[in-house]
Amino acid sequence: MNKAGPDFIAALQNLLGAKRVLVADEDLIPYSFDGTAALKQRPGAVVFPSSAQEVSGCVKLARQAEIPVVTRGSGTGLSGGSVPLEGCLVICLVKMDQIVEIDPKNLTLRAQCGAITKEIDDAAARAGLFYPPDPGSMKISTIGGNVAENSGGLRGLKYGVTRDYVMGMEVVLPDGQIVFLGNKCVKDVAGYSMKDLFIGSEGTLGIITEVLLKLLPRPKARRTMLALYDSMGAAAETISAIIAARIIPCTLEFLDRMTVKCVEDYAKIGLPTDVEALVLMETDGHPAVVEEEAARMSELARQCGAHDVRIAADEQEGAKLAAARRNAFSALARIRPTTILEDVTVPRSELARMVAFINESAARHRLQIGTFGHLGDGNLHPTFLTNERDKDEMHRVELALEEIVAETLRLGGTVTGEHGVGLAKKAFVKRQLGEGSYELMRSIKRALDPAGLLNPGKIFDLAD
Amino acid sequence: MNKAGPDFIAALQNLLGAKRVLVADEDLIPYSFDGTAALKQRPGAVVFPSSAQEVSGCVKLARQAEIPVVTRGSGTGLSGGSVPLEGCLVICLVKMDQIVEIDPKNLTLRAQCGAITKEIDDAAARAGLFYPPDPGSMKISTIGGNVAENSGGLRGLKYGVTRDYVMGMEVVLPDGQIVFLGNKCVKDVAGYSMKDLFIGSEGTLGIITEVLLKLLPRPKARRTMLALYDSMGAAAETISAIIAARIIPCTLEFLDRMTVKCVEDYAKIGLPTDVEALVLMETDGHPAVVEEEAARMSELARQCGAHDVRIAADEQEGAKLAAARRNAFSALARIRPTTILEDVTVPRSELARMVAFINESAARHRLQIGTFGHLGDGNLHPTFLTNERDKDEMHRVELALEEIVAETLRLGGTVTGEHGVGLAKKAFVKRQLGEGSYELMRSIKRALDPAGLLNPGKIFDLAD
Repeated sequence: MNKAGPDFIAALQNLLGAKRVLVADEDLIPYSFDGTAALKQRPGAVVFPSSAQEVSGCVKLARQAEIPVVTRGSGTGLSGGSVPLEGCLVICLVKMDQIVEIDPKNLTLRAQCGAITKEIDDAAARAGLFYPPDPGSMKISTIGGNVAENSGGLRGLKYGVTRDYVMGMEVVLPDGQIVFLGNKCVKDVAGYSMKDLFIGSEGTLGIITEVLLKLLPRPKARRTMLALYDSMGAAAETISAIIAARIIPCTLEFLDRMTVKCVEDYAKIGLPTDVEALVLMETDGHPAVVEEEAARMSELARQCGAHDVRIAADEQEGAKLAAARRNAFSALARIRPTTILEDVTVPRSELARMVAFINESAARHRLQIGTFGHLGDGNLHPTFLTNERDKDEMHRVELALEEIVAETLRLGGTVTGEHGVGLAKKAFVKRQLGEGSYELMRSIKRALDPAGLLNPGKIFDLAD
Repeated sequence: MNKAGPDFIAALQNLLGAKRVLVADEDLIPYSFDGTAALKQRPGAVVFPSSAQEVSGCVKLARQAEIPVVTRGSGTGLSGGSVPLEGCLVICLVKMDQIVEIDPKNLTLRAQCGAITKEIDDAAARAGLFYPPDPGSMKISTIGGNVAENSGGLRGLKYGVTRDYVMGMEVVLPDGQIVFLGNKCVKDVAGYSMKDLFIGSEGTLGIITEVLLKLLPRPKARRTMLALYDSMGAAAETISAIIAARIIPCTLEFLDRMTVKCVEDYAKIGLPTDVEALVLMETDGHPAVVEEEAARMSELARQCGAHDVRIAADEQEGAKLAAARRNAFSALARIRPTTILEDVTVPRSELARMVAFINESAARHRLQIGTFGHLGDGNLHPTFLTNERDKDEMHRVELALEEIVAETLRLGGTVTGEHGVGLAKKAFVKRQLGEGSYELMRSIKRALDPAGLLNPGKIFDLAD
C-alpha cells in the first residue's frame, strides 16, 4: 500500500473541489485520532464527500493508487476503529447528515450515514415513534458509525442494540460499486443476510452511506429509580430477582464506589459517597405497567439489600437521577491524565463475580479502576485512571488488563460488548474466538476486500 | 463432484455403524424430497449422526470422496432447501434432539439441532419462559432447520423471527472443523457477527449442530380476536389504524375469501363463508394492557369496516379462533392435486395492493389462488391450487407467478419472507438482489466452502 501523493490529491480535488479535500498539516491533526486514548496516526488527506457517488469516486481513486481508506464520522469511537494509517485517505462522512424519510406506516426511518444519532431519535419522537439505541455519545455520534460498530447503549436489556434496528443500508464496496442491502420488509430470507455481516464490521468491508432503520411506537410512560447498596453482590442479586419476577426493565445501570464518588465530586447531584454500588433502574411502556413494575422493582431492590431507593416523581427528576450514570465517564476522566475505558462483558449471571475480580485486580496491582456499566447486560466498563507517561504504572495496567480479559473469557464473556475491536482489542479477539472462528472472519475479509483497501489492520491483521 | 459409491458407504458404516447408514432404495425414498411440491432427487446414502464429532467425521469423508452433502432435519422446508442431489450424502440430524440446558438467570436455552421447535417452547414454558418464533410446522420442525432457514411464524410483528433469538451456535464447517459462534452475552461486538451470516444460510456454509437461544419472560395474558370484512382494503386499513394507535399486536393474520371457504369446508369451525377477509388478531403481555389493547383493536376494526368482531372469552376459545389460521394450508392443499405455496412479502403499507394484484392475476390466468398470511408483516402466502400434470394450467401458473414476483419487487418487497430460497426461488433472488449484492453472496460461499461441498445449487449456482 502507498501513501497519498500529489497526483492522488489532485485527483481528489478534481473530484470534490479543493475545499472538500484537507491536506495541510494543521488541518489533518484533528483527524489523526478518535475517542480512544493514546492512538494517533497522521492521514495523507481527509475528504468530505456529499453523496454515495462521491464516496464511490474516492474509493475508486484510492483503489487505483493503492492508498488505504479509513472511514470516520464524528470520531467518538473507543477502540481506535477510525484512527488513520500514516498517509492514508480519510473519508469523513459528517456532511452526509440528512434524515431522508420517516415512514410511519412501515415504522421506518431512512437517513444518510452522517446523521446524528440523537437527531434520529428526535425526528422519530416528533412522529410519536422511537429509535431505542442510545450509545453514550449519541449527541454527537453518527448513525453510520453506530451501525459500523453495532453500538449499544443504556437500553440494551429490553430493546437490544443497533443491529436490532437496521433493516437495510446502502454500501460502497471496496471496488466502488454501490449496493443496497435489505428493504422495508419485516421478514426477508432472500439469501445470506449481508446487511448483518456489514453491521459491526467496523469499516473493513464497505462504507455505509445510508441506513434504513426500524422504529417502535414511543413508550407512553417511563419511571426512573435509583437504588443504593452496601455491596455489589446485593446489587447483582436485585437484577436476578427482577428477571426472576419476569420484568425486563429498559435500563439497569450501575456505578461502583469510586465512580459514584467521582460523579458526586464532578456533578454535585447529592449522591451519598459511601455506597458500594449505585443502580439506576428504568421501566417504560404502558403507564399501568410502568407503575406496577416500578413498585415491584423498588420492593425487590430493598429485599435484596438496597438501603435506599429513590423513585423519581416525574421525567425531569428521572433525568436528574440518570445524569449520575450519563456523567460517569466524564467524571472519571478528569481524575488522572490518561483514562483507559474497557468494555468487557460477561453473561449476566457472572456480573457480581466479575466486578469483584476487577476490584481485586486493581488492589493487587495498585491501580485506580472505576467500574460502571450495564448491569442488566453484563456489560462492564472498568475505567483505568492512569498516566501513560508512568511506565511502571502502565506496565501494571497491562498486567491487570490481561487478568481481567482472562477472567472474562473464563466466564464465557466477550472482550468487547459495544465498543468494537478496532486497533485496541485485536490480540484479545483472537484469543476469544479461537483459530477456527477467527480464520472464518479473515476469509470473509479476503473475499470481499482482496486488496485490503478498507480500514486495514482493524479487527485483525490479514498476515498474522 | 462424485456420487456415493461402495467405498464411501463402507467408510460411513465404519464411522457410524451400519444401522445409522441407509442405502437401500426403499429406505432412501422418504429422504428424496422435503415439504416443497414437485422437487425430488434420490440421495446415495442417508446417515444419522448423534454428535457434532460424528457430523464432522461424515463431512470429512464426503470431502475426501468429493461427494456433496445435503443436511436435513424433519424435511418440512418449503423451498427445496433439503432436497438431495442425485447420489449425494444426506446428513439427517433428527437423532440430535436433546434440550441441553435452560439457564433462567441468563434467559437462554441450549439445544441440539434436531430438537423440535415446539418442544423448545414447551420446555421454556415450564420455566415460565417463552421462545416466540412459531413457524407453521413447529410441531415437527427442528430448531436447526429453523435457524438455517431463519424461519418466521405468526408472531413476527411483535417478536421478530428466529434470527432475533439466536445468541450462538455450534457449526461444523466444510472442512470438518467444529466451531462455536456467539455466547451468552447480551452484547458482543468482537468481530464480524458470523452467527448472523450462518442464520438463514440454508445449509450452504456449515452444518449447525447446536444452538444457544434467547428466551423471554412468558406473557401473562393473551387475548384473541377474529374480525370479518367485506373488503381486503378495509382489513389492511385496520392494521394501519392499529399501528397508528401505537399498538404492536403479537399476531395479525389474514385469510382471503377462498381460504376462508376452504377452511370452513375442511374444519367446520362455524366461519361465515361470504367474507372477503378474515383477520385473526392477538395481543399478549400484561393483563391490563391486553384488555385495553383488545378493546381498542376491536373498536378500530369496526371503525375500519369489520362487520363482525369476535373476542375470545378465554385461551381455549382463542385457540379455536386461531385454528382457522393454523388450518389454512391443510385446508387449501386438499382441493387440487398440486399445491404451490408462495411466500412473497411487501412493506406492510403495500399489502392491500398486493392482495388485489394477486386476485387480478388469478382471474386473468384462470387460476385458483387462495391467499393467507401475516398481515402485520406484509408476508403473503398466495397458494396455487393446481395440477402439475396439466401442462396448460402449469404454464398459466408460471405466467401468474412471474407477474406476482415482478409486482412484489416493484413494491420494494422480497420473493421470500420466511420460506427461504432453496431450489425454488433461485432465479427470482438474483433479480431481487441485483448483480452487486448477488455476487457478494457468492463470493462468501466461495470463501467459506471453496469445494462447493455443502448443499450445492441451493440459493444460487456458483457458475451462473
